[in-house]
Parts: sequence; structure tokens; C-alpha cells
Amino acid sequence: MFSIAAVRVTPILIADPPLLNVQGVHQPYTPRTIVEIETASGVVGVGETYGDTDYLKLAEAFAPTLINSVLNPDLLPAAVRDCAERVELARIDNTVQAEGLRGSRSLGKIASSVASAFEVAMYDALGHETGLPVHALLGGKVRDTVEYSAYLFYRWAEHPADGYAFQTPTDDWGAALDPAGVVAQAQRMAADYGFTSFKLKGGVFEPAQEVAAVKALAEAFPGQPLRLDPNGGWTVPTSLAVAAELEGIAEYLEDPTVGTPGMAAVAAKTSLPLATNMCVTSFEEIPEAFRTGAVQVVLSDHHYWGGLLATRELAATCRTFGVDLSMHSNTHLGISLAAMTQVAATIPTLRYACDSHRPWQAEDVITRPHTFTDGRLPVTDTPGLGIELDRDSLARLHQRWTEYPEFHRRDDATAMRKVHPDFTAPKLPIW
Amino acid sequence: MFSIAAVRVTPILIADPPLLNVQGVHQPYTPRTIVEIETASGVVGVGETYGDTDYLKLAEAFAPTLINSVLNPDLLPAAVRDCAERVELARIDNTVQAEGLRGSRSLGKIASSVASAFEVAMYDALGHETGLPVHALLGGKVRDTVEYSAYLFYRWAEHPADGYAFQTPTDDWGAALDPAGVVAQAQRMAADYGFTSFKLKGGVFEPAQEVAAVKALAEAFPGQPLRLDPNGGWTVPTSLAVAAELEGIAEYLEDPTVGTPGMAAVAAKTSLPLATNMCVTSFEEIPEAFRTGAVQVVLSDHHYWGGLLATRELAATCRTFGVDLSMHSNTHLGISLAAMTQVAATIPTLRYACDSHRPWQAEDVITRPHTFTDGRLPVTDTPGLGIELDRDSLARLHQRWTEYPEFHRRDDATAMRKVHPDFTAPKLPIW
Repeated sequence: MFSIAAVRVTPILIADPPLLNVQGVHQPYTPRTIVEIETASGVVGVGETYGDTDYLKLAEAFAPTLINSVLNPDLLPAAVRDCAERVELARIDNTVQAEGLRGSRSLGKIASSVASAFEVAMYDALGHETGLPVHALLGGKVRDTVEYSAYLFYRWAEHPADGYAFQTPTDDWGAALDPAGVVAQAQRMAADYGFTSFKLKGGVFEPAQEVAAVKALAEAFPGQPLRLDPNGGWTVPTSLAVAAELEGIAEYLEDPTVGTPGMAAVAAKTSLPLATNMCVTSFEEIPEAFRTGAVQVVLSDHHYWGGLLATRELAATCRTFGVDLSMHSNTHLGISLAAMTQVAATIPTLRYACDSHRPWQAEDVITRPHTFTDGRLPVTDTPGLGIELDRDSLARLHQRWTEYPEFHRRDDATAMRKVHPDFTAPKLPIW
Repeated sequence: MFSIAAVRVTPILIADPPLLNVQGVHQPYTPRTIVEIETASGVVGVGETYGDTDYLKLAEAFAPTLINSVLNPDLLPAAVRDCAERVELARIDNTVQAEGLRGSRSLGKIASSVASAFEVAMYDALGHETGLPVHALLGGKVRDTVEYSAYLFYRWAEHPADGYAFQTPTDDWGAALDPAGVVAQAQRMAADYGFTSFKLKGGVFEPAQEVAAVKALAEAFPGQPLRLDPNGGWTVPTSLAVAAELEGIAEYLEDPTVGTPGMAAVAAKTSLPLATNMCVTSFEEIPEAFRTGAVQVVLSDHHYWGGLLATRELAATCRTFGVDLSMHSNTHLGISLAAMTQVAATIPTLRYACDSHRPWQAEDVITRPHTFTDGRLPVTDTPGLGIELDRDSLARLHQRWTEYPEFHRRDDATAMRKVHPDFTAPKLPIW
């Protein structure tokens, strides 16, 4: 039983390319929260979660409550939830209702997202204390590598420099705004990292263009798994029309429409499996969705769901009801990627490649950022998460956080208004 | 990562009192299988499961396959299942159909029951290797004690000595064959161990007598939790008649009738929660039972369900669907009781006292058998399961196993025929 001597919560801003989605465009910087838990013996475990103000505020309120307690992941869900109800976060409506890119934004889900960073940090610390990799502490790995998919985005070549009071980060990927651009991006992803399955973030253009992009991918990568995710941008009839076009081409459609009833209506009339990280993002959303057959693949995000134990529990619940599990990704760094890989390694039924934004992130807070080979990451057997915190990077990215308060909350619509001044985050569905 | 150097499987026979149930009466000896896993560093972990021939045969076939592999609980379910399909156990029909005291007797469930012994032994070994209690390896305890209920049985004073070719074990509990006998037994259980909740194993007499016994208990222990379990002995109308009598008196009815449809029919018309360890004993039985509202409390048995990780996964699945979880007990020794206590300590939603046959077992294979205080067991923080194997006892009980092949398979009906020669295991329901 290992006692906790110190807990540090560090907000950072990381560079993010101008990736497009139904809600707008990624801002030049996106916030993340880094958690460190130090035990009495001086071992440090690290965790990572969303960095928006509500998440950060809760993480900062919760951290001191852990001092002198022991590493005990099971106590976190209730403890963080209690803390969320004490701090002013309690003003957040706890209605569970799918909305936004991360699904329902309930108090419980924010608490779970924050708990996940502490849980991962505890597992990393437990691993260093015992000499065991995190996967062994979760039950044991059932595979030696975890497959990821190439996460394709419509994107601009660079952020609108005019729109920001500083030089925005750039990269050499160039723009992708039509099927040819998407295929070129996929070809580079495949060449650089060996990805063999591809997900296109849709909801940006009219469905016909996005269908054309998927068909172009099918032509460029015959027989390889393809997915399209408009983040709930389509009506039920549009979803069914797209499904009809992509049956036999896509392996699944991700969140074609918003809400469980809409998803169920689509699922009833297509042979394409439907995946989600919007209408089922918490345990309380499961019964209705499973009863109505609304989703065939739950895209777990260990942040949303409350951590690695919760991800395993979700996997077991899905397995019991014949629903598949794969993994969602929001902009994240190497800590979360290591955590995803460790838990994914323990889930016997995982058969879809997981999503990861990693290729789009030029910065990291670990000393040896992951690189994909054959579209896969190895499941490390070294203690904990198998990563090392890069304290210089952490300090530099935290310094940036102090300098740019306008990015303390991710807001893709505001970023879009730098280019299209009258853009508003749409009420879904659009098409 | 700890390598496995040796695995030992030891069949034993333990003394068992003449406890009555719908299928007959406990035999004087009941078989158990004890598993030891020794790591390369000489640490030994222990596990325990059912000892009937099919279970033992599978355990013996599986054990050698672990040599030189690492302690990895997650690999067990598939590996033991594969082994079961290779050995002649494959003749067992894999239809999932509730029957007998342990519910469905499918190949998968026998494999899970066997896997559980190896899983518990691995966790005990992992605990000794890392210095952590099993609960910490499962996620962490959320309580410091686990509550158990007094498990009351109609019983004879002793086994029919004439019926067996040897002196049968006796104890000083005496007979309990009517409400007064049941109350006296409960009073001694309360006095000796501090139990405050009581479960009566029914299905032995006509429902009216068993209802009278529960009412007598209610009078003797006003306001304390009471349960009645006829192991599926009643029809739906009888179950409803009993439920009507016991609403406001019992905290739940356990398996009043057999099969999920029957349970659902009862559940639809009573306010009493229904518990089961017969119609939901594997993950594949969950969807129908939850969809039809057939059960409100799943009584987990970590042997049936495949181990401690599976018990946690079951708990999470139940929690997601608003179903409670408590714990079933079949005749078991201190290894399994320690395992039950460790995993129960990690389940946040546990709110019913767990069952345990422990008070009826005069023998054990651990050096310091558990004793209940205030109806509870402490959750130990010492490494592993917090128990030590008693090798002398193990050798003695194994020697007995070699001497009495007639008890290698538990058979309550045969035991009953020693007294009632034309008894046959009834087709349920009876009343």
C-alpha cells in the first residue's frame, strides 16, 4: 500500500493544426491538464486529461485531497464526483444529453474525465512501485501490439495568421479540402506510419463530397477498412442515403446523426454497423442504446468513461450485449496514448483499430513520443506506462498556457470565426 | 512479469453436514479442487474451486500448460476454454439452460469455474510478489469489512450412519426441521458470529412451512434482513403466493422458480426483489434476464463467473442496468472465502450481505480459518489473499479423496436415497 506524498496539476497548451469538423476548426493551441502523483518513496506517476477550465478547476480542487491517502484507483470515481459537487462546478446541468464533439456534457462526465487523469497517474505510480507494466496491473495483456487507424481530416494548410495576435504554428501537411486532398493525406499517413485503416472526420462538407472522399479512399486502398464520422451532422434520411452509398465500402459509420433515437432509426435500416463516441459516452446512456440497437461499436475514451478500469468494465458490458468496443481519440499527448495502449492490450474482444490524433500533434510532454510502425504501437512491459515525463517541455507548454488565456477553453467555433466572421456552431443535424 | 515454475492441482474431500435442499441432502464428504501456482522465485499462490470429476479433470489438463508462462489472469478465460474443448469434456452439451443448484451446466461455465481457481492463485502469487493485497491488484478496496449473512438450513442432526460404510462426521448443531429449529439455528448463528441478516435454504418442505419459518425468524429478529431460497422449487403462482406472504418481511426472494421467463413472470407481479444464482450464472444469460426484468439481484459466485476480474465486470454490468449484485456461496473453504472478501471489498455498489457456507465447514486447508465478528470479515491488507496453506490438512484431505471415490462427484440425490430409497432429484418446479 503506497502512500501519496504530493500531487501536481499542470495546465498546458499544445499546438494543434487547423483541423476541420462540424463545429468549426481546431484552434492553434488546445488545453490539456497534466497530473503527477508522487508517492512517499519518491516514485512519480503521470496522467493526462482535457484541459478546459471546468476540468482544470476540478482537478486542482481534487488534487490536495489525495495527500497522505494510498494509491487506490477504486476510490476515485466517487471521490472526484463528490468534489465536483462541492466546487462551483455544481452549476453544470447534469442532464445527460448528447451534444458537442464529446457527447453529453454532464457533471458526472466531467468528473469522470478528471478522475481518469488521477487514475492513470496512480497506475503509472503503482507500476513503478511494483515493477509491473500497467497492463499487468489491469489483469494482463492479451496482445503485444495495438493497432491504430489513420485519422484523416479536412484541413487548412495553416491557421489564419491574420486572425491571431501571434505567429500560429504551421506544419508541412498542406491543405486537404477535397477527395484528392484526403487521399494524399491518407497516402502520407500510410507511408509514414504504416496505417492500414482510415477514418475521415466528416461533417465539414455536403455529404456527397464526403462520400466521394471515402470512395476515393476505397479506390486508393482497396479492401482496407474505412470509416466516416460527421459528428452527428446528418438527419436520419441523409444518414440512410450515405449508408446506402457506403455499404460494402465502409467498415462502419460513426455518429451519422445525433442522439440515440436517431441512431436507432438509422441502425434499423442499414447493414453498416454504427459506431459512437457521442450518444453513448457514459454508463447511464448504455441501457437505452443497447435496448434499441442504436450502436454496434462503442468508441471508448478512457477520459470520458473514468479511466482504465472503467474502460475494461465498459468492454465487458459491451461484450455481454454483443456490442463491439474500439477507442475514440480527442487531441491528446503521449501519456494518454500510452494509457490507451496499455488498456487496449487487455481487452480480448478488441477487433477494430483505435483512433489517435497523435500524428497531428507536433509537441509532447514525454521524452520519447510514440511512433507508429505498421499502424501499431508495441505494448511495453517496462514499469508503469513505459514513458518518462519531459519536464522541460511541460514547463514550456505551461508557460504558454499562462500567456494565452484565450485558449484555456477549446472553442472550434470561435476559431472558425477568424475566417468566417458569421459562423456559429450549428444546431445538429445540418444536412 | 513473474514466471510460473510449477502448478499443483490437489483434489480433496471435506466433511459436510447433512444440509437439506430441493435436490436432496449434502453428502458426508464433498469434493473441492485446490490449485497452487509457484513462481520462479518460489512464491506460491493458492486457489480453490469445485471438485467434481469434470472440474478436476479440466484443472489437471490445464495446469501443465501454465509452466514457463507469466502470471496473467487475462489470458485464462480463453486458455481454459480452449483446453476444455480439447479434453474429453467437450462431450458436455454447451446449451445454456438453468438447471441444478449451480444453474446452467455448460462447457463454458465449467471452464470458467476451473479458470477461477487458477486466477485466484495467480492473484495470490502476484500479491506475494509485489507485497500488495489482492484487493489492491483488483483496483483497490472501498470498504474495510465485508458483511456476510447467516446461511440457515433445514438439516438432520447427523448423516445416516447405516447408509455409509464408514463413521460419518457429526457436529453439535442438531436437527432443524421446523420453524422452531430454524429460529434456534439462527439464534446460535447470531450469538456465535454476530450475523444480522439471515438466509434460509428452502425448497425442502411445502411452501407454507417455509413461509412460517421466515415469519418465525421475523418475529425473533424484528426488522432484520431475511431471505428464502427454494432453488427454483416453486411454480409461478406458488412463487407469487409466497411473495404476497413475505412482502414487507423478506428483503428478497432467491430463485423462487426456475428459468428466466418464470422469474420474469414472478418479478412482474411482486414488489419483492428477486435474486438468482440459477437463471443468471454466466454473461450470456444476462441480456434476456435484464431485458425482461427477471432479476433484481445477481448473486455472483466468482467460481461460476470465471474469477475476480469477471466478478468486477459482472458488478459493472449490473450497475449499468440498475441491477444489484451480491454473492452466492456453495460449500467452500477459506481460500475461496478470502477471495470473495477481497473482491467484494472492491465493489462500490455492494449493499446486501454475502452468503457463505463457512460456518458449516469444520475443516479447512488454511492455517487460520476465518471467523466472523459482527457478521463480518475484515478485508486484509497483507500480501495476496492474506492466508497460508495448511499443508498437513491438504495432505490429509487429499488422502481421504483417494479413499472415497464414491464422493468424487457431489450428488445430493444419492445421499438422500440412503434414507429415502425411492427419492429422485425432482423435476422443478415441485410445488
